[in-house]
Amino acid sequence: MNSIIKNTLLFDFYGDLLTDKQNKIYQLYYLEDLSLGEISEQMAISRQGVHDTIRRCHKQLDHYEQKLKLVKKFVNNKDKMIHIQQLTQELIEELTREEDKKQLLQIQGIVNQILDDL
Amino acid sequence: MNSIIKNTLLFDFYGDLLTDKQNKIYQLYYLEDLSLGEISEQMAISRQGVHDTIRRCHKQLDHYEQKLKLVKKFVNNKDKMIHIQQLTQELIEELTREEDKKQLLQIQGIVNQILDDL
Repeated sequence: MNSIIKNTLLFDFYGDLLTDKQNKIYQLYYLEDLSLGEISEQMAISRQGVHDTIRRCHKQLDHYEQKLKLVKKFVNNKDKMIHIQQLTQELIEELTREEDKKQLLQIQGIVNQILDDL
Repeated sequence: MNSIIKNTLLFDFYGDLLTDKQNKIYQLYYLEDLSLGEISEQMAISRQGVHDTIRRCHKQLDHYEQKLKLVKKFVNNKDKMIHIQQLTQELIEELTREEDKKQLLQIQGIVNQILDDL
């Protein structure tokens, strides 16, 4: 996985477990793409302080991922759900009875709900 | 949800985030059903110490659930996956072409994998 996506997913899953200040700095750096200097100015802390905070965030996010593996499970389950959507779609195109198609559309709807909620 | 199931699920999801000692005491109390006195003896700490540790475990597990909502999502997604299994099963019984049934069985197999991994 590319590191930008990885950092974003780690933050999506575990960002709420960081302190407010850590959360804010991580966001400014990775999601809003500000430089260390810009964050230092905006948050009124030293450049070194920003750097240390980001390093601590990484350490914590990696710790949570090592313990809970939510990002790994998310990627894995998402691929599987998409595979179900493909198989269902093929069947929809294959079958002729309207009721059968309706049932498959219902399955697709539930899969989409789960995908939204992963 | 009944509190035994809830405590078990919370521990399943977040138990690895407790310290080894907390983890052990929580397990003895909730999963192995030992009394405070028995745990106190086995772990060589006071009865009050066991009691405080269990209270702290609850507080931490609840904190993680409040932030990450993994138990809530798990219950929700599990119900949806089981619904997909039911709809798929109905279709398998409905359809006559072997290839279509095969495709539906494949979907069921993937859903089972996801259920195992939730």
